[in-house]
Amino acid sequence: MTRQVILQRALALASEVGLEGLTLGRLAADLGISKSSLLSHVQSKDGLQKLVLDFAAARFIENVLRPAFLVPPGEARVRALFENWLDWPKSDPLPGGCFFVAAATELDDRPGPLRDRLVELQRKWLGVLAETVMSAATAGEFPPDVDAEQFSHDVYGVMLAYHHAARLLRDPAAAARARAAFEALLASARRSPARPTPDASGASSNDRPAGPPEPQDVSLFAGKEGVSCRASSNA
Amino acid sequence: MTRQVILQRALALASEVGLEGLTLGRLAADLGISKSSLLSHVQSKDGLQKLVLDFAAARFIENVLRPAFLVPPGEARVRALFENWLDWPKSDPLPGGCFFVAAATELDDRPGPLRDRLVELQRKWLGVLAETVMSAATAGEFPPDVDAEQFSHDVYGVMLAYHHAARLLRDPAAAARARAAFEALLASARRSPARPTPDASGASSNDRPAGPPEPQDVSLFAGKEGVSCRASSNA
Repeated sequence: MTRQVILQRALALASEVGLEGLTLGRLAADLGISKSSLLSHVQSKDGLQKLVLDFAAARFIENVLRPAFLVPPGEARVRALFENWLDWPKSDPLPGGCFFVAAATELDDRPGPLRDRLVELQRKWLGVLAETVMSAATAGEFPPDVDAEQFSHDVYGVMLAYHHAARLLRDPAAAARARAAFEALLASARRSPARPTPDASGASSNDRPAGPPEPQDVSLFAGKEGVSCRASSNA
Repeated sequence: MTRQVILQRALALASEVGLEGLTLGRLAADLGISKSSLLSHVQSKDGLQKLVLDFAAARFIENVLRPAFLVPPGEARVRALFENWLDWPKSDPLPGGCFFVAAATELDDRPGPLRDRLVELQRKWLGVLAETVMSAATAGEFPPDVDAEQFSHDVYGVMLAYHHAARLLRDPAAAARARAAFEALLASARRSPARPTPDASGASSNDRPAGPPEPQDVSLFAGKEGVSCRASSNA
């Protein structure tokens, strides 16, 4: 049995029972192997939790980030990141829903290395979003003083509201609402915070020619486990 | 020992260990009473979970809704609901953070009466927010075609992002970011969705005289347990 298969099953299980519920005994039973056999791959419950967290991050990079980094930098890439993120529960489904939403709630009051790693991953992801917005500003698609950190914070809220509406409320309009909220954020970003409403149509900045896309070589979520995504823009 | 004291402790415990972790044995030990003594107040774990959910809803009504319904209807009340909600973790703290955020993640994939009741409560709260926005539209503070349901959905996202930034990321700017996002939603609501940007300043609608505030008698979150909040506007 490969480590990949073990982690795949561990992640699915963790999405249902939480990282705390992910014991070596339960995972071994789930995989139909002995606990001693599992121990030859994973040394401890703590080690398993950490591996699962980084495995989930690697899947997020593969499904959300990597395809978006094939899109030219700027608003197009911001949109691609958003759409891939929105689509992630379908493109890479887990039985218990988004692993990161559950992990955030589970770990927020549990100090330790696992929480620290989750915070590091989340901050890096928010940073990638903010940097992509800044690239769009550099390309002239947003004003230079756009608040990219507020934007990435707000997009996170759009996605959490989507998860809540889709998973708990089973709202058939959840995705449409998420997209409407995202479009409103883009419209607001085009106006920029320092100049609240200089151009209500939001059209002028789009009419500007975008600057030449600069080649990018981005290492994302790089941690001790070497989870990373290197992508070049070929725009 | 009163039922109030029992539910108070049960809610605090559930905020830390989840509704599923809230067993009669654990709660009895936590209260320092025998399980048989606890059983004279609560008949079953299922019954306890349901009581805790409604108790949390009653606390939300007391701390968030009731004071806001003393404020005149319209944008002022929308703001009061938002500020009271943002302040709830401080005005009525629980050791494990927001009970409803944790319950939503815990119950979203667990069909049953408890999940149904949570969904009912969440929908009612979203409905109260939307109705308050519609009152503001009636008073001329927002355009008549404002998308009140989108607004309440979006405010929910603002609050989930605040919870994430404050509790997990320990972001000192979390509340400031939430308020900035809320102000952007208000500005967007003033412009209304059907007419994306008729008035960039967003000022005209505020200059209109508000219609006479209609008396309100609102029953909120009313369920089998009779959790409700009746309030009259004395504006």
